[in-house]
Parts: sequence; C-alpha cells; structure tokens
Amino acid sequence: MLPIKHCFSLPADTVYLDGNSLGPLPVHAQENLSRVLQQEWGQHLIQGWNLDGWMEQPARLGNTLAPIIGAEPNTVMLGDTLSIKVFQALSAALGLRPERRVILSDSGNFPTDLYMAEGLIHGLQQDYELKVVEPDAIEAAIDDSIAVVMLTHVDYCTGRMHDMDRITQATHQAGAVSLWDLAHSAGAVDIDVSQCRCEFAVGCTYKYLNAGPGAPAFIYARPDIADKIEPILSGWLGHDKPFAFERKYRAGESVERFRVGTPPVLQMAVLESALALWQGLSMAEVRKRSIELSELFIEGVESRCPMLDLASPRDAQQRGSQVSFAFEHGYAAMQALIANNVIGDFRQPNLMRFGFTPLYLDEKDIERAVDILSDVMTNRLWNKPEFQKVKAVT
Amino acid sequence: MLPIKHCFSLPADTVYLDGNSLGPLPVHAQENLSRVLQQEWGQHLIQGWNLDGWMEQPARLGNTLAPIIGAEPNTVMLGDTLSIKVFQALSAALGLRPERRVILSDSGNFPTDLYMAEGLIHGLQQDYELKVVEPDAIEAAIDDSIAVVMLTHVDYCTGRMHDMDRITQATHQAGAVSLWDLAHSAGAVDIDVSQCRCEFAVGCTYKYLNAGPGAPAFIYARPDIADKIEPILSGWLGHDKPFAFERKYRAGESVERFRVGTPPVLQMAVLESALALWQGLSMAEVRKRSIELSELFIEGVESRCPMLDLASPRDAQQRGSQVSFAFEHGYAAMQALIANNVIGDFRQPNLMRFGFTPLYLDEKDIERAVDILSDVMTNRLWNKPEFQKVKAVT
Repeated sequence: MLPIKHCFSLPADTVYLDGNSLGPLPVHAQENLSRVLQQEWGQHLIQGWNLDGWMEQPARLGNTLAPIIGAEPNTVMLGDTLSIKVFQALSAALGLRPERRVILSDSGNFPTDLYMAEGLIHGLQQDYELKVVEPDAIEAAIDDSIAVVMLTHVDYCTGRMHDMDRITQATHQAGAVSLWDLAHSAGAVDIDVSQCRCEFAVGCTYKYLNAGPGAPAFIYARPDIADKIEPILSGWLGHDKPFAFERKYRAGESVERFRVGTPPVLQMAVLESALALWQGLSMAEVRKRSIELSELFIEGVESRCPMLDLASPRDAQQRGSQVSFAFEHGYAAMQALIANNVIGDFRQPNLMRFGFTPLYLDEKDIERAVDILSDVMTNRLWNKPEFQKVKAVT
Repeated sequence: MLPIKHCFSLPADTVYLDGNSLGPLPVHAQENLSRVLQQEWGQHLIQGWNLDGWMEQPARLGNTLAPIIGAEPNTVMLGDTLSIKVFQALSAALGLRPERRVILSDSGNFPTDLYMAEGLIHGLQQDYELKVVEPDAIEAAIDDSIAVVMLTHVDYCTGRMHDMDRITQATHQAGAVSLWDLAHSAGAVDIDVSQCRCEFAVGCTYKYLNAGPGAPAFIYARPDIADKIEPILSGWLGHDKPFAFERKYRAGESVERFRVGTPPVLQMAVLESALALWQGLSMAEVRKRSIELSELFIEGVESRCPMLDLASPRDAQQRGSQVSFAFEHGYAAMQALIANNVIGDFRQPNLMRFGFTPLYLDEKDIERAVDILSDVMTNRLWNKPEFQKVKAVT
C-alpha cells in the first residue's frame, strides 16, 4: 500500500517534488552501507569479493530491478553511468545493422544521449549520421535507412511520453533496432520491455529508484540478441572468464558482456536498500497514484495560479510522472518556492518542473505545495532579489 | 612519519599484504560517508549538487591526487572505472596520431587494458593493430609505425617495473604517444608524470590509495595536449556547459572533457577520506619504506622457505611495491596462510603475491608474516583438504 513515506528520510516540513532528478534517502540505506563498510570491507578486505558476493551484485541487482521495467530474469545489468550504457547499447545496435548508417533520435532526448551518439560517430570515422527530428515527427522519419531509433521515453523537460510499443513496432517494421532510455520511466510509469520487444533499454537508478547521487546505471538487452553483441567497451569483468586472465577477450554470456570494470560496491549497497523498497509494490498502482497526484496538482495550479501555463501534455496517458509549467520568471519563482520548502526544479528557458513520486507523496503534500505555490505567485515573491541569482542545478 | 596504522580499520591479529589488490578501510571514511548520506543527500537532496560541491568533486579530488603521481594542478580527473579510462586515453591517443595504426603493448599488461584496446579496434572497423610483445622487447619494438605505446608500469603478477622515463623518451623519439597505466604504481612508487612527459596516465584508487571496492578511477592528460582531444566518450558532464543543455557537444576545458556521466558521490566521499591520509606524506619516504619492508620479507622467505622461488626482480629498483614467489602448490599454500591471518593472494599459474604498503605495515608485521609462512611451508599445511578448493579472487 502506498505511500511508504516512513521508508524514506525526508527533511521535516518539506514537500519534495524533485524525485525525478534525485530520489530521497531510503532509511535503511545507512545501516546497510555501514555494514558493507565495517563488516565487509573493513573485516573481510579483499575476501569481500567472494564472501560477500560483491562480484555477483551487478547481475543480482539487475534481477531485482527487472520486474520494475517488465524485463525477464538475467537480462538487466547494473554498472557505470547512463552515458556509458547509452554508448554500449548504441554501439551494439549499430553492430546489429552493419549495412545501415543512420541513428534516428529526437530533440526531446536528453543531451547526453545525443552527445554520446556524436562521440561514437566521431570515433567510428565513417559515414554514420545522427538524424534528430522533432518528437512528433519520429514515426514518419523511420524508414529502411535507419539502423537504430534511440529515444528517451519520457521527456526530461515536459514529461511528454512516447508510445513505446507503437514506435518500437514501427522501428521493427522498418528493420531497425530499438533503443529506449528509461531514465524518467523506470519506477515512474508501468513499462514492459519484454512485451515491447525493444532490443535495448538503459536507465539510471538515482531518480525514481532512489539509489542516491551517482548510483549505477542499468542496461537491458533482449535475450535473443544479447549473445550476438561484440562489445566495444570490452572490459575484463564482461569477459567469459575474468579470473583466467586470458590474453584475448571472449565476451561473457548474454548480458554479462555489458559489464566493464570493477563495480562500485558502496553505491551498489545503497542501490540494494533502495530496490528492496519495491518488493510488493505494483507498478500499475504506482502509476495510478502518480496520475491522481499529478492531476490534483494541475487542477490546483490552474485554478489558483493563472499566470502559469501547463507545458506538459494535458492527457495523463501522454505524460510520465512529472509536470512542467511555463512562467517568464520561472527561475526566481522556483527559488522562492524552494525557500518555502516545496522543492521542484527549473529548466531553461522558462520551465518550472515538478515530479510526482507516490512512494512518499500523498494528497496533503500536493495540497500544501499548491497553497505555497499560490502564495509565491499571488504575492510575487519571485521579485525578491535573493531569488534572482542564477545557480546551475542538475 | 610512517606508519600511520591508526588511520586504518584493520582486523585484529591480521597482517594484510594485499593492499595491492584492495586497500583497507580508512577510519574516518565511515564518519565522512555518514555525513554525506544523512546531512547532504538526506537533508539537501537535489541541492547537494550545489550546496555540497558534488559537481566539482571529481576535479577537486583530481587535484588532491595529483601530487601523488607528480601531476600538475588541473590535469587529473576522477570518475568511471579504470577500463573506461583506458578506453578514453587510448582513443584520444589514436586521435593524436591519425596517420598511424599500431597500438604497442606487452604481455605484462593487465588483461583489461588489452581487452579495451581490442574492443576499440573492433569498433573502429579499420586496419588498426594491437601488437603485444614481451616486456623486455618493448623498447626494440618502438618504431615510427607505432601510434601509441600503452603499458602498465608495474606488472600485476610479478611486480616487475618498467623504466617509465626511458620508455617514454623512446616513444617520443619515434613520434608516438605514451600512455601509462599506474594501477600498481599510484601510492606505491614515486612517479612524476609531469617530468616523464607522457601524454596520458590512468589508474585506480582502490589499491594503494585505499578508497574502497569500486572506487573511481583517474585519468591524467598532459596539459599541452588535453585541449586537442575530441573525446569519443563525449558525455554531458564533459561538455563545456552541461547545464545549458545544448544540442551539440562542445568539449569542456582541458581535462574536464574526460568527465562522462554523473559522478558516484558516495564513492567520492570515501575517496576524499582516503586521499586525506596522504597529506604530509612524502612519496620518496613511502617508497623507501616499501623497499625496506620488501627486502626484509624476501630475505626472511629465502632463508626460511627454500621451496619458494622469487618470481619478482631481485633488484628493488626494478620492482614496484609487491613481491611474488612461485610455488607449485601456491594456491593451497596461500589459503593456508590466509587461514592463519596473513593475507596475500594467488595468481595463475603458481604465484603467491604479497603487497607492501608502508602506510600500515612495519617490521613486526613482516617478521610475523615470515614466521607464519615458514610454518605453512615447513609443516606442509597446504596439504589440508580445506585449502585445496579453488575460488576466484580478484
């Protein structure tokens, strides 16, 4: 039953609407991390790799995460950062369509996905092309020149959500490979990569999955194609027998080949605590509550703050778990809101962004957030000089 | 003054001779990590990126690490794993010599370095070649066909150490680029990348630098060439203005461009505690003590365990901070030794490996280790069935 607010360590009197950027601290993380630090690393030292299962942890946690995105067992691997996982999946996808030369994406993709594609193309030194169209032009742009369609499912600015099943079908009809970035989807909306039949999915665990700043990323590869991949990032822990120290690389079985270097054991410990909270939760229920809370927020803001314009799709079925409003003085208004303990964030040029994470939010939080936002807007609190100074926020 | 044993949390009655694989827990790490967890993440949430300097930490800790390897300020960046950093440096090195096609390395290199080179070459789909020679044949193999000479400074099996200055000079005389893997050197021997003039150096922080399992890796780029690199792993945090969310990648200044994705803030917190221990230590003093302890160990073992054959160079100037002995039943003998609280490790086919880390070892530890090893050998303790069962150890 939601919410499970008591499982998170949240500051007093704060309504946290930024779990789409960084989820809050799970209460049990400290205890688990201290145990790993003191008992495992401190006492077992090098033997921790065997005694405490550090080496198998990225695959084991992959299996814990799998149901949240509808993945089969042994198809998800944790590690590295999302940018690296994009690079792995994208290079693998190109390898599956060696005769094609176009990567198709859209302008709603998060910049690092496009940057990693640019870097890969630069590295390949061949006539590859990154074609970037507007989000609503994606389906029309899918043709048999396309090697891979690489999209972020939920837009980081507006929360606009692609139809994953339909676009993947169109991708496959054109003979192309489908790669989804689930950064703003995993733990936010009910997705089913297995049913969707996309070849690759990647995502991060520090947003809706609450695994902390810099938590490891994940990669999913459809089981029937995983063994066909010849990894470019062919690190030793993706080798079939890492501790045989063979001279030549031989890719490990299935998704094991997406491991690269030594896993971040301490971040993994926190991830383990964070994923444990999803045991027994239904993604359908999480999604239902997220829509209820988002709709309540939109209704409240639109009725009480007429100077804010909804920048997200009005239809909840076309939104992820975040809502953005456009406002000329959005940056300063968000600072004023934060100073009053309602935490969202700001995205250029004028978007006030709010994430709805039903694990620790309920109707009272939403009502309070609307009250305070209404106060900020009605009393023009953004005009105060202390809220004008621009700082970068991730 | 060495040792600073009180700064580490070591199990009672244990002589830890495996800091070359995983360094022990710094005492202050727990306190620092708990503060980051509870005060920073727990209380500041998303604002931690600004309020607590998370975003600048990889560069700031790069500057803390720099003196340990003789690097100038603003030339070292933390992040990712060593395998990824090898890939970054190697692809950058090839980019500096676009007309050359050969990567030269040796059979003493750690497998992941060779694997990453294989993967890169596979990805480039061009006529690149990885040429691997025996360690003592490296200098003769450097000619003007070579784009980059990629070597691990200290051999992970035997501790054999290359002459970094001489090989780098030969590399430059042939017009090639020099890339050093300092995994077994940083914090172990006194090196000076600035004086050596190598273009790139990479390394890890979980061995002699004691930053914990899966701690971030580092990359050094010589300041006069850093700005010439067009990164293949062009992640958003290496962008000149990550939070402008521009459509096109523009590499950040100097070594900033070797950042990729979101940094592992919790692992960084432990790294910070670990690097703090080096304040005031002289690498010349660390190296001197490491040689004294290693020589004492070799002398003791050779006089009391005649069935063990020294597999490391006898000349301390040609060794890093580890010593290996060959023994037919080396695996079982190492298990017996570990069961008696002297912790080293085993490497195929027959090497018993011991690391000497003067930060927490003194003469008494060495004498005790020799006593117990002598007991294991003299009384053939390796014959016990419980020591025969093979387990992989990293």
